[in-house]
Amino acid sequence: MRHSSRGEVDPFIVMDVMEAARKAEEAGRHIIHMEVGQPSTGAPEGARKKLIEELENPLGYTVGLGLPELRARIARHYGEWYDVDLDPTRVVVTSGASGAFLLAFSALFDNGERVGLGTPCYPSYRQILKAVGLSPVDIPTTFAQRFQPLPGDVADYDLAGLIVASPANPTGTMLDQGSLAALFDACQAADAALVSDEIYHGIDYDTAPVSALQVTNEAYVVNSFSKYFSMTGWRVGWMIVPDDHVRRVERLAQNMFICAPHAAQRVALHAIDCTDELEQNKAIYAANRSLMIDGLRAAELTRFAPPDGAFYIYVDVSEYTDDALKFAAEILDEAGVAVTPGLDFDATRGHHWLRFSYARGTDDIREGLDRIARFMKARQS
Amino acid sequence: MRHSSRGEVDPFIVMDVMEAARKAEEAGRHIIHMEVGQPSTGAPEGARKKLIEELENPLGYTVGLGLPELRARIARHYGEWYDVDLDPTRVVVTSGASGAFLLAFSALFDNGERVGLGTPCYPSYRQILKAVGLSPVDIPTTFAQRFQPLPGDVADYDLAGLIVASPANPTGTMLDQGSLAALFDACQAADAALVSDEIYHGIDYDTAPVSALQVTNEAYVVNSFSKYFSMTGWRVGWMIVPDDHVRRVERLAQNMFICAPHAAQRVALHAIDCTDELEQNKAIYAANRSLMIDGLRAAELTRFAPPDGAFYIYVDVSEYTDDALKFAAEILDEAGVAVTPGLDFDATRGHHWLRFSYARGTDDIREGLDRIARFMKARQS
Repeated sequence: MRHSSRGEVDPFIVMDVMEAARKAEEAGRHIIHMEVGQPSTGAPEGARKKLIEELENPLGYTVGLGLPELRARIARHYGEWYDVDLDPTRVVVTSGASGAFLLAFSALFDNGERVGLGTPCYPSYRQILKAVGLSPVDIPTTFAQRFQPLPGDVADYDLAGLIVASPANPTGTMLDQGSLAALFDACQAADAALVSDEIYHGIDYDTAPVSALQVTNEAYVVNSFSKYFSMTGWRVGWMIVPDDHVRRVERLAQNMFICAPHAAQRVALHAIDCTDELEQNKAIYAANRSLMIDGLRAAELTRFAPPDGAFYIYVDVSEYTDDALKFAAEILDEAGVAVTPGLDFDATRGHHWLRFSYARGTDDIREGLDRIARFMKARQS
Repeated sequence: MRHSSRGEVDPFIVMDVMEAARKAEEAGRHIIHMEVGQPSTGAPEGARKKLIEELENPLGYTVGLGLPELRARIARHYGEWYDVDLDPTRVVVTSGASGAFLLAFSALFDNGERVGLGTPCYPSYRQILKAVGLSPVDIPTTFAQRFQPLPGDVADYDLAGLIVASPANPTGTMLDQGSLAALFDACQAADAALVSDEIYHGIDYDTAPVSALQVTNEAYVVNSFSKYFSMTGWRVGWMIVPDDHVRRVERLAQNMFICAPHAAQRVALHAIDCTDELEQNKAIYAANRSLMIDGLRAAELTRFAPPDGAFYIYVDVSEYTDDALKFAAEILDEAGVAVTPGLDFDATRGHHWLRFSYARGTDDIREGLDRIARFMKARQS
């Protein structure tokens, strides 16, 4: 049967790792999961309890932009977290950040237009862009620039749009307000759209992350209930769009999605106020982060930028290997720890990198680090 | 801020009707809703109860193709309903039928390719195609051909793909096995992809609908838990793809959606076995349908094909108006019944048509028909 060329999407390397880990577990081995990018916690208990009461209702379609009370609550969240006064009409509730990107790309870009990504980055940006007929453009970033794109890139790469992520996956680095503003200015000058992925906001350690909304009203801001709010499998996120884009995005949302899952929207509405539970999760990430930084260094995996946010550390392992995939397979086989080779995030240079996730429980992190230390020691002896 | 041309999506006319109905209700009027395309029932009670027990689990991401037990259960469903032996690996669980279309269009078509739609049809086909950079092609169909496209259309319109729906929205007409096979053969001959929308299967009256899977393994079959299974707001559906397309669609699904909502997948798994509840709903649609056929005829709205399935009747009102939008507004104002003008389904000829939905409770249908009869009588006197 016929098929498209734009649908020829690269496989996720991490999926091979996960499958190998699954097989090892099936064979009776105990595996520590540092490959997975999701919290082990579910939606906050307080929110789940409220949903149980609400399951009596039919929970049919909501309006395309989402439950009005959820949109209002998200707008209020910008006041609480960023001191930004946001009109709720600009809030679009989406089927996860994934749904937000699909909407944004349709609303902003025409066939074949060039959209830039600072690599290493979340691999699905590239694949979604390709799948909907656009041209993803890799912008290699460096350790020195903390893996974030530079304002000059917008013109240099002839971009119609730029996606930035802060905190970023896989590096955990952030853009400060000045850097974000400079990127926005460069986009403005080139009539390029800035899409700011802020899904790891709330999972930050020393400094609070800056939202693009603190810099401009003329960007698309993508966020999600999957990370800080710990609602991965519910598939609900949101997007803030400029005033004069609301109707456009509403029509696209009605047609492309009808609405985000209703039950998930209800859970999200309640989750946003489960502060105690969420801050407890965050404290675990912070503890894990400290353990990771120390533990990786102790294992002589030292070439990384300590993450500002998110729950990943991206490590340059070029001193040990030119084949991160093979290296990851050895760590799984010999140490029983699943980690992600960098190739998903950076097709060109990822063979020299590994991503370690510390989204899981602290005991697992401790055990995983011990195993990695032993593995590295055995390797060097 | 910049925007795309492909994101310039037509507004839904029905939304204006719904907004006018909402305002009328706000002003204290009682409105009968014959504009809405969703069941008033929620997910089956049996399924909701099981979800409550399962909310103890974290319900994180599922694998991209969906919960293995749900895929297996859907495959078994094809044995039970169609006597088709289906390999579960070909089942893709999606974020509603909407998600299935997004996946199918990315997997099958390249930028600008022509995809045919027999009009009148579900308006979002056209808008989703446009939004992802493809070219929707309207194929006007006639009453005599029961509003379904003809095999010759595939070559005549130079199509890379054809979307068929049986039972169809807004007409409720079905394709029999011979017609579906002839359309498939025409697609094969032209190297065009056949996408079969089967979301109204299970809501049928005299004859069982035919699945494209009974005709070929070389089509994309889209279905949903929203209609027969009464799970609109949960956003879960499925798609059956050819064997050699599974990996391609899996990669697209992982990137574009990560997964369908986990809780919704659990509810779907349970809903599929809530046969008694679902058959009770179906009996209501059947009763409503009889009332509608008689009631519309009694009101001298006689130009329609009695629906084979779904819960809509599409009526030619050209003897009364050249402006269905105005006519619908009058019915709302004067009779207190919300109905949908045909323009959403057929931009060229829809000004002569109205769609009446009978998805709601039978008492509402009876009252709505009385009101319409009085309205039509007053109009003619």
